[in-house]
Order: sequence, then structure tokens, then C-alpha cells
Amino acid sequence: MRIVQKFGGTSVADINRIKAVAQRIKADVDAGHEVAVVVSAMAGVTNQLVEYCSSVSPLYDAREYDVVVSTGEQVTSGLLAMALQSLGVDARSWLGWQLPVLTDGVHGKARIESIGTDEILKRLAGGQVAVVPGFQGVDGSQRVTTLGRGGSDTSAVALAAALKADRCDIYTDVDGVYTTDPRIVPSAKKLNKITYEEMLEMASLGAKVLQTRSVELAMNHHVRLQVLSSFNNEPGTLVCDEEEIVEKEVVSGIAYSRDEAKVTLVGVEDRPGIAASIFGSLADANINVDMIVQNVSEDGTTDVTFTVSRGDLERAKQAVANADNISCREIQTDKDVVKVSVIGVGMRSHAGVAKTMFEALAEKSINIQVISTSEIKVSVLIAEEYTELALRSLHTAFGLDAA
Amino acid sequence: MRIVQKFGGTSVADINRIKAVAQRIKADVDAGHEVAVVVSAMAGVTNQLVEYCSSVSPLYDAREYDVVVSTGEQVTSGLLAMALQSLGVDARSWLGWQLPVLTDGVHGKARIESIGTDEILKRLAGGQVAVVPGFQGVDGSQRVTTLGRGGSDTSAVALAAALKADRCDIYTDVDGVYTTDPRIVPSAKKLNKITYEEMLEMASLGAKVLQTRSVELAMNHHVRLQVLSSFNNEPGTLVCDEEEIVEKEVVSGIAYSRDEAKVTLVGVEDRPGIAASIFGSLADANINVDMIVQNVSEDGTTDVTFTVSRGDLERAKQAVANADNISCREIQTDKDVVKVSVIGVGMRSHAGVAKTMFEALAEKSINIQVISTSEIKVSVLIAEEYTELALRSLHTAFGLDAA
Repeated sequence: MRIVQKFGGTSVADINRIKAVAQRIKADVDAGHEVAVVVSAMAGVTNQLVEYCSSVSPLYDAREYDVVVSTGEQVTSGLLAMALQSLGVDARSWLGWQLPVLTDGVHGKARIESIGTDEILKRLAGGQVAVVPGFQGVDGSQRVTTLGRGGSDTSAVALAAALKADRCDIYTDVDGVYTTDPRIVPSAKKLNKITYEEMLEMASLGAKVLQTRSVELAMNHHVRLQVLSSFNNEPGTLVCDEEEIVEKEVVSGIAYSRDEAKVTLVGVEDRPGIAASIFGSLADANINVDMIVQNVSEDGTTDVTFTVSRGDLERAKQAVANADNISCREIQTDKDVVKVSVIGVGMRSHAGVAKTMFEALAEKSINIQVISTSEIKVSVLIAEEYTELALRSLHTAFGLDAA
Repeated sequence: MRIVQKFGGTSVADINRIKAVAQRIKADVDAGHEVAVVVSAMAGVTNQLVEYCSSVSPLYDAREYDVVVSTGEQVTSGLLAMALQSLGVDARSWLGWQLPVLTDGVHGKARIESIGTDEILKRLAGGQVAVVPGFQGVDGSQRVTTLGRGGSDTSAVALAAALKADRCDIYTDVDGVYTTDPRIVPSAKKLNKITYEEMLEMASLGAKVLQTRSVELAMNHHVRLQVLSSFNNEPGTLVCDEEEIVEKEVVSGIAYSRDEAKVTLVGVEDRPGIAASIFGSLADANINVDMIVQNVSEDGTTDVTFTVSRGDLERAKQAVANADNISCREIQTDKDVVKVSVIGVGMRSHAGVAKTMFEALAEKSINIQVISTSEIKVSVLIAEEYTELALRSLHTAFGLDAA
């Protein structure tokens, strides 16, 4: 089997962890697998390098930023190759420009265009482990690029796709994807399998196990992703195509996001084009809007509510208040809200998920402020103080509690 | 004028120092010069990286070691390019593989074979500063190499030679080359100019201002080297061809080295080939021998004395003691010795330097244990306790004291 393994920051935090990771890789090599490894920077290194850049010049050149911050992963890749060799495992590092990992020229958040694999495929077949620094690449003009924070997951998935690997194992400090946050709901279960679509909803909703971009990439290239812990030997969660999941649950998990803030425009003039004016002004300010609801019109005015990231709240309020073509009686804002989402590909073929959700919340007297739905999820905005109660109630209502 | 400037570890110790260096470079750019810069790693970084390598595996792969330790200079080069840009100076970093700085494949102590300059010559002419990480290169098989500790001086001189620069400025934490160690002889003077040959003797004798290798390279390519401080604006010392020095002193400086140990083989059988046996056994053990003296033979035996680095003393004693074909009555060793050298290209045409030296030492009752001479230096081995006295006396005897 050909496996790409990715080890994140906590997995290669220090020299002892790097040695432990080498042992883990050796076990897979000894089992006869071909292994390519993608590594992050050691703990704290990237933050230190970013801080250097900021203190030299707040408006730094992204090309030089990439030269600086890409060194963290380079160090880990050399050290891990050494650690493998010292266990008798043939290994070498392959820097972004050596493979090459060819990207576009958007420094600081480049996208991978192709990965050269001829040489490492030969060497993998010969039993050599390839150790590749994540996060880094090289553009067409031979300058170092980086993929943006968390880009090592993307590097791993792209490498797995290019190598046509049988699986891409993402080692992290959690041992898989859970039905909900186990710190809040102790009866949360680890999922054996989850679809890419569900994982995307989980990730973007705050279950920060995998970078959204890497899941999209895995979905597009049908790369089977396994999320697992480098601190134990438990099997993790496989993120895969829907077809590979035999027993589908209607609902796979309950996600939540505290990074929400609500804005309500009270008494907006109810005329065609008013929504375009509001959301146009927010788009111009580069503010992402998530949920939107417009109340039924009375007396020629309407109330428009939408949510943004908490960090964008003040800017969103300003953008709307300053727009010439929007008039409203009042702008209300609320930061004490949370978005709770019920996620599952099974709901495509099962009616009644929303009903079950709303009933479970009503039973606990939790008021729903905004609702939004997609094919595979139902999200509601509620007061933040109900977060734990809502998660527990929904987890039970959808039969997700561990036996 | 086209100038290569090299900034060592203390000159780029931290972010503030990097900003100060950028100011200094800007001044030269503003004066209309073309400037290429070679930088070392920030203070402590290389030691940290070397320590990582050693703790992963004491017998590390030199190719991976180079991947790891070359990152220190890469970080500085990116940061300095940013710092220059923030002052409005056009600048970019050029990594070893980008130029390329092509080296042989002797990882950890590679030698530079050629440097690609087409692109940066164009950009220098256009006013862009090239920032090049020292110490690093790339070999023919596209793997990262390093030049060995202190290799950044060599990088700078090689770049100056390749660019046919008018001068190579080596910025360090001392402001030039002195007639002797000013910490010992307060009346020591900074030299305005010194020849390559003299500098080589000064450097290899312990005046650790420049790497020996970089001075050799400068001599071979007639690169005019200036040693100066990045902490003030004083002119430094120019290391150049003899022809460029109009007023030659007979003696330019007095150097000393405490890294000496003396071995005496008492009562060695005096036969042809015995010296070959002794120094053959030391060469086999990879021990460098410096001074050698063989006393006049009496009663068929002779005494042979030689000096080695202090760190090699025990190994040297063992090597000689264990050699089958050497028999002697006794092996005496002495670590409490120092080598003091009088250096000057002028002594080629002036007799009497040795006489003046020996008289000055005799006047202070300093016993000379071993003597060795070359075209441009006379060295003596004396008891270490006389170091300061000998340096002061010789400095005065050769008229080097500041007025």
C-alpha cells in the first residue's frame, strides 16, 4: 500500500516527538508499505518567524515572507530524515523546489498546480521514505511560495493525489472526528467514517481538525483521508466518498461555532434592490456574510438580520451605516450568539431532520433566532448561553450518544 | 562602484541589528554604489540547529544536516530584504539554489565551484540590492550544501570574485586588523592596509578576524577585502595585493596562538627515515603538526620536538607511542606554551628581523623553545606565562606602538 502521512505541529513539537514519529513511520515501512511523509514546523517556530517578519516591517513583501517562514518545515524535514536513517530506514528530504511542488505566484497563500513525482515514485518503490516539508512550494519564476497557515494538510493531500496514494493519514493531537465536541458532550462518539461533504461542514463550522481546503482537494481527487492521533495507536476517522460508507446515519454529527455575531437592521425601507444594497456594501468591505433572514414586511418596512464573524462585527456595522442608499430606523447587534448545526448526508433522503431539531430545542425552551439549511445540514442561531444544553439535547435526539 | 558586503552573526544578531544593517546598506546605495549583501544566521541560530541535528542522531547524514543548518542564513536574507524594502531600497533575496551557488558535493564543508551572476548583474545595474544567504550552496545533484562553519566569509569573497566587485566589505564586531591583540597591548594600532599573505599568517595564528579560506580565495582572485565594524563608522583594514601598499613596514604585526602543545621525543634512534616514521604516524592519525625541530645527534640518539593543537595532544602522544617502528627513551609533553610570531612582507628584503626578535626576548629573559620561519614570518614557542610580556616587548622593538 502507498501511504502519505502528515504530521502536524504538535506531532513534531520537539526532538523527542520527531524520534517518536520516526518509529511510527518505521512500523509502516516494515509492514511493506511505501511511505511519503509531509511535516509541519516544530512547535512555535512558525509563529516566531512570522513575528520576525512583522517586526522588521508590518507591510512585508510576501515573497520574502515566504523565504523566511518556509524554513520551519525545512528544518523538520531534515531532522525527520535523519531520525529515520538512525533507525535504519532509508529516507531523504525533498524541499518544495526540489520535487518540485509547483504553485501559482500568490505568495503567502499559493495554490499547488502540480507536483513532480517521477523520482520519488522510483525511490518509494525502492523502499526509500520521502520526507517533504509541508506548506511550501515554488512558483514558475523559481521563487519560494507558501500555502498559507495550515497549508501542510493541503500539501499532504496534493502529494497523495499526485502519487495516487491509497490513503493519506493526517496525524494530529486528536484521535479522529467526533459526533460532537467531546469536551461538551462526554457521550460523543468517534466516527469511523465520514463523507467529504460532512467533513467540510464540520470543519467550516468549527470542528478544527482538518483545513477546509485540504478536504475539498481530497474530495476532488478522491483521496481517502484518515484523521488520527500521533500520541496513541487507536484507529482514526476515515474521510471518504459516500459510496464507501455502507451504514449511513441520517445525522453524522452536531457542530457549533461561537465565531458568530448577529446584525439586525430594523425598519428598512422594503423596496426591490434593498438586499443587494446591504450585502453589496458588506462585500465591498470584504466581509463574509453567513446566515441571512428577512422578515415579512409590515407598513412598508422590513427587518433584515444577518450574521458575520465576530471580528468583522464593527466593520460590518460601519459598512451598513455608511452606505448612502440604505435607510433604517436602527442597527442592532448581538455577539452572544452561537450557530449549532446538524450535519448528515443521510438527510438528503430522510425528511423530518429539521422538525426533530426544532422540537428538541423547543423542549428545552431554546429560542431559535435564525435558521439556514443546505442539502446536508440544518443550522440555527441561538443565544450563546444555551450552547452546551443545545448540543447535548440534539446529540441525544438524533441517537448519537455512545451506548 | 560595485561592492559586496558581508554581515556576520553579531552584525545581524537580532531584528534591531538587521534594521541597522539595512540603514548602512541604504547609505551605500544612495551614494550610487551597486551592492550585493551576504548574511550569516542570527545570533545563536546555527548553534541551535546543529544541536538539533546532534540530538536526533550523533551520526547524522551530512546532506540532511545541510538542509537543516542552511535555514539560519535563509531567514536572515529574507528579513534583510524586507528591512531594505521598508527603507525604500529595492532588494530581493537569492538562495543558494536560486543563483545558483554551485558547489562540490562534500556536504558540511563544500567548496564553491561557480556562481551564476547573469541575472543579479542586470538587477544590480538597475539599482536592486541582492541579499544572499552565506554558507549555503547547491551541488550538481540539486541538493543543499553548506561550506562549513564561518563559510559566509568565503561566500562573500566568492560572490565578489564572480561579480568582479571593486571591494568586498566584511562587517564584523571588530573594526579592523591590529598590529597585535589590543586587549593585551593597549598601544596596538589598527592597520590601514595589509597584504593577503600577512593576513593569512595573522588569521591562521589566531587573530580570528577572517576565515583563512576566504583570505586565500581573495588572494587568488585579487578581491580587495575590507574588514570593518558594523557597530561604528570608522574605516577598517584593507586586505589587498602588495603592490597596493605604498609604505610597507618591515613588520606589520605580532600574532600569537595559545592553541599549541609541545611534544618531545627524547633519545630517539638517529637513523634515516626516523622522521618519516614519526610524522607518518601522526599523519595517519589525521593530526596536523606545526613546528618541528630536531636536535643535533649525540651518542647515536637524537631529540625530536614538534607542536600540535592542544586538543590533539593526547592523540598525538598515543600515535607516536604506539608506532612499531619508533623507539625513544621518553615522550615529554607541555601544554603551557604559546607561539608568538612576527609577521611582515617587508622582511623579505630586510635582514635582521629574527635578530631583533631574539634580542628583545632575551632582554626580558624569555627562553625560546622552538623556532620556525617562513618568508614573511618568524615564530617562536615560549612558555605561556610570558605571552603578554613578549607581545609588549616585540611590539615596541619593531616600532609598532601608537604615537
